[in-house]
Formats: sequence, structure tokens, C-alpha cells
Amino acid sequence: MADPTTVRTDARRHHDPQIRGFASDNYAGTHPEILAALALANGGHQIAYGEDEYTEHLQRVMHSHFGPTAEAFPVFNGTGANVVSLQAMTDRWGAVICAESAHINVDEGGAPERVGGLKLLTVPTPDGKLTPELIDRQAYGWDDEHRAMPQVVSITQNTELGTVYTPDEIRAICDHAHGHGMKVHLDGARIANAAASLDVPMRTFTNTVGIDVLSFGGTKNGAIFGEAVVVLNPDAVRAMKHLRKLSMQLASKMRFVSVQLEALLAGDLWLRNARHANAMAQRLAEGVRAVDGVEILHPVQANAVFARLPHEVSERLQKRFRFYFWDEAAGDVRWMCAFDTTEDDVDAFVLALKEEMAK
Amino acid sequence: MADPTTVRTDARRHHDPQIRGFASDNYAGTHPEILAALALANGGHQIAYGEDEYTEHLQRVMHSHFGPTAEAFPVFNGTGANVVSLQAMTDRWGAVICAESAHINVDEGGAPERVGGLKLLTVPTPDGKLTPELIDRQAYGWDDEHRAMPQVVSITQNTELGTVYTPDEIRAICDHAHGHGMKVHLDGARIANAAASLDVPMRTFTNTVGIDVLSFGGTKNGAIFGEAVVVLNPDAVRAMKHLRKLSMQLASKMRFVSVQLEALLAGDLWLRNARHANAMAQRLAEGVRAVDGVEILHPVQANAVFARLPHEVSERLQKRFRFYFWDEAAGDVRWMCAFDTTEDDVDAFVLALKEEMAK
Amino acid sequence: MADPTTVRTDARRHHDPQIRGFASDNYAGTHPEILAALALANGGHQIAYGEDEYTEHLQRVMHSHFGPTAEAFPVFNGTGANVVSLQAMTDRWGAVICAESAHINVDEGGAPERVGGLKLLTVPTPDGKLTPELIDRQAYGWDDEHRAMPQVVSITQNTELGTVYTPDEIRAICDHAHGHGMKVHLDGARIANAAASLDVPMRTFTNTVGIDVLSFGGTKNGAIFGEAVVVLNPDAVRAMKHLRKLSMQLASKMRFVSVQLEALLAGDLWLRNARHANAMAQRLAEGVRAVDGVEILHPVQANAVFARLPHEVSERLQKRFRFYFWDEAAGDVRWMCAFDTTEDDVDAFVLALKEEMAK
Amino acid sequence: MADPTTVRTDARRHHDPQIRGFASDNYAGTHPEILAALALANGGHQIAYGEDEYTEHLQRVMHSHFGPTAEAFPVFNGTGANVVSLQAMTDRWGAVICAESAHINVDEGGAPERVGGLKLLTVPTPDGKLTPELIDRQAYGWDDEHRAMPQVVSITQNTELGTVYTPDEIRAICDHAHGHGMKVHLDGARIANAAASLDVPMRTFTNTVGIDVLSFGGTKNGAIFGEAVVVLNPDAVRAMKHLRKLSMQLASKMRFVSVQLEALLAGDLWLRNARHANAMAQRLAEGVRAVDGVEILHPVQANAVFARLPHEVSERLQKRFRFYFWDEAAGDVRWMCAFDTTEDDVDAFVLALKEEMAK
Repeated sequence: MADPTTVRTDARRHHDPQIRGFASDNYAGTHPEILAALALANGGHQIAYGEDEYTEHLQRVMHSHFGPTAEAFPVFNGTGANVVSLQAMTDRWGAVICAESAHINVDEGGAPERVGGLKLLTVPTPDGKLTPELIDRQAYGWDDEHRAMPQVVSITQNTELGTVYTPDEIRAICDHAHGHGMKVHLDGARIANAAASLDVPMRTFTNTVGIDVLSFGGTKNGAIFGEAVVVLNPDAVRAMKHLRKLSMQLASKMRFVSVQLEALLAGDLWLRNARHANAMAQRLAEGVRAVDGVEILHPVQANAVFARLPHEVSERLQKRFRFYFWDEAAGDVRWMCAFDTTEDDVDAFVLALKEEMAK
Repeated sequence: MADPTTVRTDARRHHDPQIRGFASDNYAGTHPEILAALALANGGHQIAYGEDEYTEHLQRVMHSHFGPTAEAFPVFNGTGANVVSLQAMTDRWGAVICAESAHINVDEGGAPERVGGLKLLTVPTPDGKLTPELIDRQAYGWDDEHRAMPQVVSITQNTELGTVYTPDEIRAICDHAHGHGMKVHLDGARIANAAASLDVPMRTFTNTVGIDVLSFGGTKNGAIFGEAVVVLNPDAVRAMKHLRKLSMQLASKMRFVSVQLEALLAGDLWLRNARHANAMAQRLAEGVRAVDGVEILHPVQANAVFARLPHEVSERLQKRFRFYFWDEAAGDVRWMCAFDTTEDDVDAFVLALKEEMAK
Repeated sequence: MADPTTVRTDARRHHDPQIRGFASDNYAGTHPEILAALALANGGHQIAYGEDEYTEHLQRVMHSHFGPTAEAFPVFNGTGANVVSLQAMTDRWGAVICAESAHINVDEGGAPERVGGLKLLTVPTPDGKLTPELIDRQAYGWDDEHRAMPQVVSITQNTELGTVYTPDEIRAICDHAHGHGMKVHLDGARIANAAASLDVPMRTFTNTVGIDVLSFGGTKNGAIFGEAVVVLNPDAVRAMKHLRKLSMQLASKMRFVSVQLEALLAGDLWLRNARHANAMAQRLAEGVRAVDGVEILHPVQANAVFARLPHEVSERLQKRFRFYFWDEAAGDVRWMCAFDTTEDDVDAFVLALKEEMAK
Repeated sequence: MADPTTVRTDARRHHDPQIRGFASDNYAGTHPEILAALALANGGHQIAYGEDEYTEHLQRVMHSHFGPTAEAFPVFNGTGANVVSLQAMTDRWGAVICAESAHINVDEGGAPERVGGLKLLTVPTPDGKLTPELIDRQAYGWDDEHRAMPQVVSITQNTELGTVYTPDEIRAICDHAHGHGMKVHLDGARIANAAASLDVPMRTFTNTVGIDVLSFGGTKNGAIFGEAVVVLNPDAVRAMKHLRKLSMQLASKMRFVSVQLEALLAGDLWLRNARHANAMAQRLAEGVRAVDGVEILHPVQANAVFARLPHEVSERLQKRFRFYFWDEAAGDVRWMCAFDTTEDDVDAFVLALKEEMAK
């Protein structure tokens, strides 16, 4: 295998690799260990579409995290992981109970409805977290054909608001849902950040407490691309490989997805990356708390900081660092840290915030 | 940027990079220049979901191949490229005329129907190629609501049978389809092999002769993953970026798709890879023609060789080299060459074939 | 034509035609004039699938109510009318803003999502009525592909809660929606009751104030079955007849749908039926208001009365008259009057309510 | 109940009830006994959406025809019956094997694909009839996720070409399909004509020989509207009532569908109508055979006559009697007889044919 760093390519560098912001963990590139893993898996022929040796080995890696019944189905992206999962867990007549702020409801362009024919039964939540009581606002009418049938509860860990469910909170949700004959899906686009925040293994808040199917996120935690549907309860799904294919989420050269997930999960890269991103968010929150006139909105439990500050300050600050408004009318913003955010990045951002607030 | 080949990763090598077969160009890994391009695009933050500088630059590269109106929308895989293209070219009530052997009809798990709600109006073909006359078997009834409305003709270049349309043949199809108010889509999963075979620029048999939208294939020609919908006629589509997202084909870290396509297309990597694979198929065909009792089934115009031989010979040969039956009942097999197939691979295979035929 | 009342049929009567309740206007049978109209349209051959003379004549009848641009597309039922309308008004990537309590959201088994691939963007409302301000909670992000694109506002007149929009309220909604480039759909399953309540022609609160497409309801107002999509603004829809067919709402013997709508609309049967049902609801509300311990929940503006009373009283009362709980936990019930509800029915019900409250 | 024939309605007669043609059995009106049955079921309140006493009684009528496990789910139309049936028999990843000429493939506007997400795997047939051998052209690859999974074989009795399967032919299909783990659906839009042709009870070629689910047709045999999915094998379907609702095929005033089916099936109206239509087709075929230059194309086994004659003769004849070209290029036409076709109609048509042939 030629050394990719010395190979001549006709592609050119078009960006400044020293510039980082706080817009999204998707703005980051990939961790060097991921590139190294891709090189390792290259060369020779491997069976396409998932029967390669990397995907086979990935199963063993997943078992070490999620126990021996876990089966991983690598896919391309998080929307794909969610919609494949939810289709596998529902019938044509099924519906999914979720928080109004859930990614599947607000950020997937209607893919659950359009690709999966799924009805989402949403519940407003104060902090992005469902509870048995909130679930009950939509959990009824299973025999009523006029109503889409609630078959799955989908939660996000950590949530879109940067909050983290405790294992007990998830257990209560799973017990409640299962008691109604429903299954539970966990959108784990940032599952590593949640595990780092709780300082427990991922299984502690997934299969141990009753999660049936998991969307495991790699991209936001340092992969180039690549997520996996991880089936924890085999009875909760059907025909996964058919659903992945017909949902256009089947990678031909799957070894290159699987080896990225192996690179994250075989050792502690997943945890190192997540801990670092979380620590940077804590540093950021601490810095921000010292700035008068800026309010932190939700508990900072993972790699996101939500804050409220004067709109014009945000606009000036956005000219120096990229980030998004979360609720522009209210003046709320979201600042995300990534695996590659540095202490200097944070400190420079806090300084800039102070400067702009002082103008 | 650390040198990926020296970075320690927890992933391990699980396969022998010296073993290659003739099963599929998807069994191959990726070209080293692609890995180098990934490393080049890494580091720093880039806007997610396609507003990065690599995707912007990709447009200029595409213009150099397909003219200034071309716009590329990178996606994950070929099924995704096709289904996004066809949705963008049709209405909810539309249908697509295609060859019975088309990938969209036989190899996409029903994704066009299930994700796109598309009706495929199929026509049997002798060699995988449509003609105006064959199209007319399905091109009627536009005002009849009992019939799904034919709005698009989709052809594959090169075809699933390894045959290649001439530019004039495609022009005749486009003129005919346009005359009926239909648009024309080209599934170019192996477009580079076709261009190499015809020894003309890709535009000669696409926008120059009337193709409206193109699924451009990178994966089978040496990329890790990555295809693009290339819109040649902007009037032929609507809301591409919305359709890509709702079809779950929007990569968050899109720079890593775009830079692969740039690595292929900025210079001649696309052509080198395709010429090589085609040349290996020619070498293979020549070798096979010298073997009594083996019949080559279609003109060998790209990187595939279709052959008919005794079933038990194929089975013995499959223990030595991977390949697929195409029509098991008839004893037909498909041998694919890839960018990384070597002359030694071909010669060893032909020798093995001779040995097995002689048993 | 033989007299149907004297024709011997092998079907038998299985019910007591003297028993009526307050469960739903769908529990009522059909008005005798509708049966007479069916007999009138019978005999001889008429072109199937809508090219018959009854459907043609229906257009003229509709013009007399909704002006010369109105075009009616008869369909089977209300869900069909709504889902065909909304598909015709949206693109594949479109979404529909509606009240959380809208029939399309809570009572159609997910048909908008499953058949139409539509995302519903819902807003909680106090009384089932949208306003420009409430619409704005969902009216944003048209260029954001991560969000389903709001293309239509759908309102219900009268609402599921028995309340009626004034023409000015609808005009404000239409102006607001159109200002954002959205279209407006009116679910008129009980449009006649609304017109009777407002004492204005139907056009006064539909095309006059900007409604683009209307689901016109016949079934709840005395037809056997039969609704129509009435397109008021031809620019707001595309390919209506194709969408009706592919949505499985195209009646072969359409003359029998059209003649029912003619029977309702050519004279004043639609208004007589609606006024009567509304008057019975007023009589019922007056009677109920005199009963201590029963609270009427919404303004009684059409043919529905919503009330809150002790749960066990409702349960006893349901053994004497059929009706439904609306919110069983809260003790809320819905009492519907129909075209065939009599004053005696109402008086007997109020008496029974008093008796059960006194126990 | 007022006598509908004496009730004054504002609807008017717009057509000449003496004019009939040979275009379609859908051009006919309804049998007077059906109108009488509607009047019988009218009056009073009945639970909506299928819990009425007529729908309950219909089950007993169906049992007398199809045995005690049969359960009928009334729907609006034939496309609805087929698409609800096929959804209930398949998974999200399922496909349906059918004749290329099947109504579901050519005449339903893509509803199976668009509403049900179903892939149709079609087979050309000489006479509209499948056989085990023809089925095998598509019956393979159940474990291959790249292929839509064949789960159902759908046949039409009688076929779209007026031919009739014998019970043994259907048994062979069912045995073959069941042997592969597939289920069998029968599109019985004209099932009564087939039973009349074979002179056997309907069960003889349905549940007795292995049909799992049946689309029972009433409309073409004299009803106003109304079909039913008849589930013969309860294990072959799931959630029928949910699928009917979400497919927009749930009638609110279902008593009026059920009583029509009762009127057909409680006595022998279904058989009288079908026998008469078949006899008229025989009379027509005999008359046509005596005309030189007109070729009858398929065995005339039900109520359709297919013929080939000079195109210009057909065009002149169409000015005197309505009928359709079947294959305009070939000069093939279809002449349908209905329950109300008279001997005089047939004789006049044959005479006209002779006259036009002689010109």
C-alpha cells in the first residue's frame, strides 16, 4: 500500500485546516486514526455489500460494548440509521412517539414520513427528554384504525438540547413502553458524548435498561461518514438487510464503513473523542458564565452549550466564529464542541464574546 | 496532518490484500490517490451538508467535463443517485421507461417504487440497450389516468450487460423521448468505462446528445464511496437539494465525497482506472476465446465479460476465483474486471479456466 | 325504471329505523331525496370514471355556488378528498400546516403521511382554529432542506370542535399564507353546517376570501357516500385526475356520486339538512345548559355540542343513547346532531341526561 | 321510509336510459334490486365505519359462499380492494408476481407502487393466465436484499382477456406458490362471471383450491359501487382494518356498501347478472363469427369478446355503439356485455358490424 500522504493526487487543498468554529460537530473533519484505518482496510478484494471481513469483525467489537445479541448494520448517515431502524420496528400502520424537538421530527426533511410512511406522534418537552407521563399523551388507541398505531417510542441520547438521560430515566421509559407493547428506539447520533458525560459504558443506558434498537453515531464523533443500526433485541426487528437496501443505505464497499467503526470502538477512540468534546463544552460554559448578560439555557451535559444573548452581539460574533441561532426570535444560540476543538479555540471564543458584549 | 500510515489505530487488518477475483468492481478497494485526497481535505472546519469549499470546487471540475450548466449533487451510492434523479425528473404520477434488465428494475430492492413511488415501465431488450422502437412499447397514454404517466426514459451506459451505446444511439433516444415530452436519465454507474471504450469525452454521449440528468458513478471506478447526480439540463429537475435530503442521501461531511470525485475527475484518474479495467476485460476475453467450450455472450465493450460454460466447471472455478452466475439455469456467468485487476490475475484465471475445462 | 320500494330483494332489514343517537352525523342514513336521485340517474349506459353527463352537469351546479372557475372532482370519502387535495397542492418535498386537532392529523390513520408522503406541521389551538400568528409557529425555513417545506395551510370549517371561522378570519389566514407563497386548503366535511351557521353562501368564506382548494363534504350532510375535491383556484393544483386515480378515489360509476351532490346542491337540500342539524344542536345546548353540573365546552356554532360532565353519568347515559367520549380522562363528551335528528330525540336525550345526573 | 320514486328531488335526469353500448360493464347502472336494498338499509342510526348490523350480517352471507373462515372487509372500488389486499399480504420489502396484463399492473395508475410501495414482478402471458412455469420466471431470490422479495402471486379470475382459469389450474398455482412460501391473491373484479362460466360455486376455485385473499367485485356485476376484500385464510393477512383505513377505503356509512353485497349474494342476483352477461357475450361471439373478416382473439369464456377487424370499420362502428380499442395498432377491440345488455342490443350490434364491414 502506497503511503497516501506521499501519493500525488490531482485533488487540491481548498481550505485552511487551522480554522475551526462552534457551528456543529459535523463541521469537523475526521480523526487521523480513522484515515489510518481506511488505509489498513484497503487493497485486495472483499465481498461487497456487507459480507466482508471487516463487517464480520465489527460484530465482535459491538458485542464487547453491547453484549452478545447485538448486531450492527452499518449505514451511511444518521437519518438513514433512524429511518431504517424505525421501519424495522413498525408495521405499515405504525406510528412513533417522540419529542417534538427530536431530530426525526424537525431535521430529516420528512424522510420518516416519505420514505417510511411513518406517522410521528410528537410531545412537547421542556428539555428534549420524554418521560412515561409525556409518552402517555400519545400512547393510546392501539385498536382504533382511525389513529396511526403507536408501536415505538424514540428517544435521543444525548438530546438535541445537550441534555442527557440517566440510565434510570431510560429504564422507566422502556418499562413503560414495553408494558404497552411498544418498542424503544434510541437515536444515538451522540451516544458517545452521553456515555462520557455519565461516565458509564454505553450498555448501561441501552440494552441493560431495555433499549431495543439503537442508531449508533460515528460521524459526529470523528468518522468520515458512517453510522450503524445496532439491533440489541433481535425480536424487535424484521428483515433488516432488506430494509437497509430498499432505504438506499447499503454501502457496496462496506468494509470502509465498518473499519471506521472498528477504529472508534475497538479501543477507546470513541471515548477519547467524546470526553474531549464534552470537556471543551464545559470549559466554554465556564467561560461564558463569567460573562454578564449571557444566559446558559440548558444543563451543559454533553458537547453543546445553548445560550441566550443579545441578537446583535450574536451577529457580530458570527463574523468571527461560525455558529447557529437555535431560536432566532428569542436570541438563542447553540455552540457545539467537536473532537478537534482546542482549549485555545474555546478561550479565543470566550474572549471574543466578552469583547462583543462590551461593545 | 499526521501521516495516516504511521498513525496507530485500534483497527486491525482482517484480510489478505493480495487476493482479487472477478466478482465485481465493487469488491475492489480504493485507489491510493483517493486516500491521499481524503487526507488533503481533512483538518479544520468546513460547513456541513454541501456548502463546503470542496463541493463548490467540484462544480468547476464538473463544468470541465459536462459544460457550464452542469451541477453536481454528491450522494452516497448508485441507488441513491438514481432514485434522487428520477424523483427530481418526475411528478407524483410519473413513470419511468427502462430496460427490463436495468439496475433500477432488478437490483435496487424496489427502492424506486418504495422511496420514490415510481412506476417502472419495462421493456425486454436483447443486449440491455433501449431504442426508440423499444421505448414506444411503453410510450403512450399520457392523458390516461389509469396508466402511470411516462415522464422519463432511463438508460444505462455502459449497460448491465457490458455493452456500450454509441453517441448516435443515445441521441436518437433523447430526440425521440424529448419529442414525446419525456426527459432522459442516464445511469452512469460505469460511465467512465463507457467513455474509455468509446474513446470520447463523457459529454459526447451525455449533454451533447440530449441527456438531461446523469447518475455519475465513482465507487465502481476506484472511490471509497461516492456518486453524484449531475444535472445537465437545469429545467429537467426541481428542488434537488430537498429531494437529496429527504431521500437520506445528504452527507454531513460532504467535503469527503466531493474531494474523491475531484481526485477522479480533476486529472485523468477516472480514465486511467476505466481504461485499465476495460483492457483487462479485453485480455480476459481474448484468453477465454481460446478455450474450447466457453462461449462469450455479449460484445465485450467495457469491463465485463459474460460467458456460457458448463455449470460444474463454473462451480469448480468459483472455488479458486470469486465470480457470480448471471443466469444459473443457463450456465451464464459474469466476470468483472476492476481498476486493480492485474495482467497476472487475468492470466492466472484463464489458466485456471483451461484446467477446469480439461477435467 | 322499476320502483325500488316494490322490487323484491334478497337483502333484508337488520335494524330498527326508529333508533337514533348523538354519536355522529355518520351514523345517520341518507335523505330520501338522495335515494330518489340515485334512481333517476340509473338505467342505460354512461361513460365510466367521470365522463358521464351527471358529473358534467355537476360542474354547472358547483359554478352556481363557487363561481365559474370551480371544478369538482367527486371522490369516495373525506379522507380521500383531503389527501388528494393536499397531494395536488404540494410537491414531493412539501408539508402542510394544520391544527393539532385537525382530522387529517388525528383521524385519518396516517393516510396523509403514508399515501401522500406528506409531513404535517401541527400547531396546538384553543378552539380548533388557526390564526396567522399560530401559522407562523410553523411557517418558516422554506429554503432549508432539513425541514419539510411548508407549502399549504389546511383549515377545517366548521372545525372538529364545532366552532366556525368568520369569513374575515379565513381571509386573514389566506392573505397571510399567500403572502408566504403557501396555498390554503379547506376541509369542508361539514361546510354546509358552517354556511348555515354563518347564514352566508359557501363562497363567502371560500373562494371570495382566498381558499384555493376545498374538500366538499356530502356524506355527513345526508348523502349515502360522496365528497368532492373542489378546485377553486386552478393554478393551485396539478394533474387532479391522475392523483385521484392513483389515490384509489376514482369511482367507476361516478354518475352515482355526482347525482347525489347534485341532489344536495341544485336546490337547497344541503342547506335544509345543515340548518336542521344545527338547530337541533342549539336545542340540545339550551336543554343542557339548564342541567346543573354539566358544562358546555366550546361555542355551539354548528351541529356539535361538547360538554363536560361526571364520567359515570356519561357511562349510564351511553346505555340509553349512543355518543362518544372526546377526552375520556377529562370527562369530555361530544354530542352530534344529524339531518335526521328530531326535536323529540333531543328532548328525550335532555330528559335522560337530567335523570342520570339526578341519580 | 318515503318511496324514493315519488320523492321530489332537485336532481334531474341528464341521460337517455335506453342507450347502451359495449364499452364496459362499468358503463351500466345498477340493478333495481340494489336500489331496493339501499332503501331497506336506510333510516335510523347505525354505527359508522363497519360496526353496523348490515356489515355484521354480510359476514354470514359470505360464509355461505366461502366457508366459515371467510371475513369480508367492504371497500369502495376494485383498485382499493387489490391494494389493501396486497398490502395486508406483504411486508414493506415484499413484491407481487402477476401477469403483465394484470389490472394491478396496467390499469391502476401506479397505485400498488405509490400507495403500497409494492414492486410488481410481471410475466408476459399469452392469454392473461399465469402457470407455475410462468411464475417461476420471477419466483426466486428470497434471501437477496437487492431484489424485492416475492411474497404474493396475484391472479385475475376471469382474466382481463376474458379467459377463465379452471379450478385445477388455480390449485396448481396455489400449491406451487405455497410451496415457495408465497401467498395467493385473486382479483375477482368479475368473479361472478367466472363462476357462471365454470358453472361451479365460487368457493370451488377460491378457498377450496388454496386462494388466500380475494378481491370480490360487486360494481361490475350490478352494484352502484362496492367491493370487498374477502380474507379466506386469516393467517395470510394482518391488521386489515388499519390498512383499509389508511388506504382511504373505509366507508363511514358502510351499511350501504354491505347491503348491496348482501343483495347480490344472499340470493342468486350475483349469478343471474353474471349468467346473463356471459350469455350475451356468447350470443355476440356467435353473431360475430358469422361475419367474414372479423377474427375473435381469445376463448370467449365470460362477458368479454376480443376481436380483430379493420381499423376503419371499428371507427365507424364506434359512432353507433361505444366500445374501446384494446390494441389500436393491431386493430384489436374489446366488446363487453353487462347485466343489462339485451338480446336486442347484441343483435343490433352484430347487424351494425355487418353493415360497416360491407361498406
